[in-house]
Amino acid sequence: MSTTAEPIARLIEAFSRLPGIGPKSAQRLAYYVLQSSDVEVEELAESLLCLKNSLVLCSRCFNVADKDPCSICSDPQRDKTVVCVVEKPSDIPPMERTSQFNGLYHVLHGVVSPNKGIGPDDLKIRELLPRLRDGEVKEVILATNPTVEGEATAMYIRQLVTPMGVKATKLARGLPYGSDLEYADDITLGQAINSRQGF
Amino acid sequence: MSTTAEPIARLIEAFSRLPGIGPKSAQRLAYYVLQSSDVEVEELAESLLCLKNSLVLCSRCFNVADKDPCSICSDPQRDKTVVCVVEKPSDIPPMERTSQFNGLYHVLHGVVSPNKGIGPDDLKIRELLPRLRDGEVKEVILATNPTVEGEATAMYIRQLVTPMGVKATKLARGLPYGSDLEYADDITLGQAINSRQGF
Repeated sequence: MSTTAEPIARLIEAFSRLPGIGPKSAQRLAYYVLQSSDVEVEELAESLLCLKNSLVLCSRCFNVADKDPCSICSDPQRDKTVVCVVEKPSDIPPMERTSQFNGLYHVLHGVVSPNKGIGPDDLKIRELLPRLRDGEVKEVILATNPTVEGEATAMYIRQLVTPMGVKATKLARGLPYGSDLEYADDITLGQAINSRQGF
Repeated sequence: MSTTAEPIARLIEAFSRLPGIGPKSAQRLAYYVLQSSDVEVEELAESLLCLKNSLVLCSRCFNVADKDPCSICSDPQRDKTVVCVVEKPSDIPPMERTSQFNGLYHVLHGVVSPNKGIGPDDLKIRELLPRLRDGEVKEVILATNPTVEGEATAMYIRQLVTPMGVKATKLARGLPYGSDLEYADDITLGQAINSRQGF
């Protein structure tokens, strides 16, 4: 029999189902909630419950958004000649934080993965093509993850878009900022050598 | 203007107020919630909302509990001759996990801290004394944290309980398991030397 009161144990259990939260963090969070104000706790619970009800998929880029079209697709300031293709909605905030990209996005909602039975038709790949037909888009950045499946998906899309006269690019591969050659993995270091840049 | 949809931004904000959760973790959690089942999300929200309503302080040990007296105080299997005094309710689960302690607890709900204006009367120290009066309790383990305030609080309580014929002990100080002498701080290493044990 556990000696922790059931409501605390239940919250610890619920927290520990979240990614990256182990039993110790979950316990710390639960006891933190215990001593926080009611307003704070209600705000977190409310945000959780409201999340899905108030979100839609943007019918152009398929990002999760509070309106359709989303704030990026409907922003006249964004560069409509470049579309950045990402695997999932959570890949967009890090891209935005760099301030290095001012184009539009297209969210695939996954990668081609024969092992998991996910083919191109299970993703939003077909939906990308009409966006490229009017000739406004000049470049598609295939920003899928640098994994086997991500690369394969990018390659597949490249074969579809290049015949349409759209340039396909991918994010540079190389050593991450602040890393140490000594600890770099072979593949990353190999790519960094092969893609070495003049400066 | 942020390009993240407001309901997601709101949940990220709520998550990032929790201890040990930075903006990146908060974002990861929010996007995880976005793709989890409604049942899972509701379970977390419910657990949060139910937490405080369904908890009371045990009137004997002052642990947070779902009933009064708590499951530890009302367990006939527990050793009623030893009381372990801890700073806060969240100190009890780690003690229990060791399986090395089978006595009762007493939760102070803080430490004496002149800087923060917290005196002995702001804690559950006075409430400890009646528990020691009938002579059943032989030992009080002062398991406050090994900090200046924790030690001072332990010392204060020791002065109250020893005249009552109750033995006061504290948790051993020394090197943590798995640590490396090279990286031990001076105080810990000094205490480990002074408390060296024959074996």
